[in-house]
Amino acid sequence: MEFESYFPVWEKLTSVQQERLKGSAARRTAKKGTALHSGSMDCTGLLLVERGQLRAYILSDEGREITLYRLFDRDICLFSASCMMRSIQFEMMIEAEKDTELWIVPAEIYQSIMQESAPVSNFTNEIMATRFSEVMWLMEQIMWKSFDKRLAAFLLEESALEETSILKITHETIANHLGTAREVVTRMLRYFQSEGMVKLTRGAVEITDEAALEELQNA
Amino acid sequence: MEFESYFPVWEKLTSVQQERLKGSAARRTAKKGTALHSGSMDCTGLLLVERGQLRAYILSDEGREITLYRLFDRDICLFSASCMMRSIQFEMMIEAEKDTELWIVPAEIYQSIMQESAPVSNFTNEIMATRFSEVMWLMEQIMWKSFDKRLAAFLLEESALEETSILKITHETIANHLGTAREVVTRMLRYFQSEGMVKLTRGAVEITDEAALEELQNA
Repeated sequence: MEFESYFPVWEKLTSVQQERLKGSAARRTAKKGTALHSGSMDCTGLLLVERGQLRAYILSDEGREITLYRLFDRDICLFSASCMMRSIQFEMMIEAEKDTELWIVPAEIYQSIMQESAPVSNFTNEIMATRFSEVMWLMEQIMWKSFDKRLAAFLLEESALEETSILKITHETIANHLGTAREVVTRMLRYFQSEGMVKLTRGAVEITDEAALEELQNA
Repeated sequence: MEFESYFPVWEKLTSVQQERLKGSAARRTAKKGTALHSGSMDCTGLLLVERGQLRAYILSDEGREITLYRLFDRDICLFSASCMMRSIQFEMMIEAEKDTELWIVPAEIYQSIMQESAPVSNFTNEIMATRFSEVMWLMEQIMWKSFDKRLAAFLLEESALEETSILKITHETIANHLGTAREVVTRMLRYFQSEGMVKLTRGAVEITDEAALEELQNA
């Protein structure tokens, strides 16, 4: 597939803008686990996912993580080009969570097109509003939802994403997604196991009662 | 003062756009405590603060609140016009925290100008990025900072805003700002009092050792 079919407002660009954008976009393959962006000093550029899965997360001074959102096919990552907007004042990390094919558009090229094109700027606004909404959703989860419900929701989401009931994931990794300590995850998973909702084996969590997890999530 | 001196990209608008914007902006006085916006079904419009203080917060199903950020003189509130962007998918409340003079620009007028004007759209992007940064800062506080540090930071910020060391504020109101229960606030304030950092009286918290609170905040 060509770059233009992945860039939503392509037909609203002038032909000069189209050429600058396409000419500067670099195609790249990122293996699972690759760090694509780490904080505001690192002006990677705009990422456009062709195929794969990226994870955006924040990191505490002590090395604890919390997943903010994921990016899938055709999604655009704006914050890897945060240097192009002076009002973005936070550090976000981006990594490939699966093998990912993507394009990288240099921040200064995208910025210059955005500054002269109302359609590109309005499109960028909508991307930012989407991410803002995801972060607000997460904030509400953290503030008002108890940890058992968040963990149930996480296991169900992972299971849907991976299309399997056997999740090959460590308690440490789950803790990093949810912004808590490994011990907290282990304790809750053991409780889930005692209730017959999951079965724990070395390096894996098997969902054995999806309906019960769903009921817990929505309780 | 005139509307145009408060709208930052005024000189980048066409004269037709200037007239539409100024002609549609309604001036209003909101008394302290007035609810200006409540959630996405309520398309109030863009708020431009001339003088005063607004508070943006979210509300749980159980009625618990957490303050997201404040708006001061010359600040613009975008989320009270959230209906103009379909990607904004969260409910935010706005109230006047002090008597406030403001202009309200109808969402559909602002939206139509933003869609044709790259400067207005880019300016809107910067506002959203600013609010996003404030929310990310809050998220990091909630995730990684203990409650004693958040409470110390809140008391110091209130004291700076109100320019007094005697804060006329209830434990309930503090709890609503910080997204916790009143009992949690009361317990921590009593601890602060036992450490000589504050003095508690009916309906007020007096800061008696600002340096100690600052030290705690930055620990």
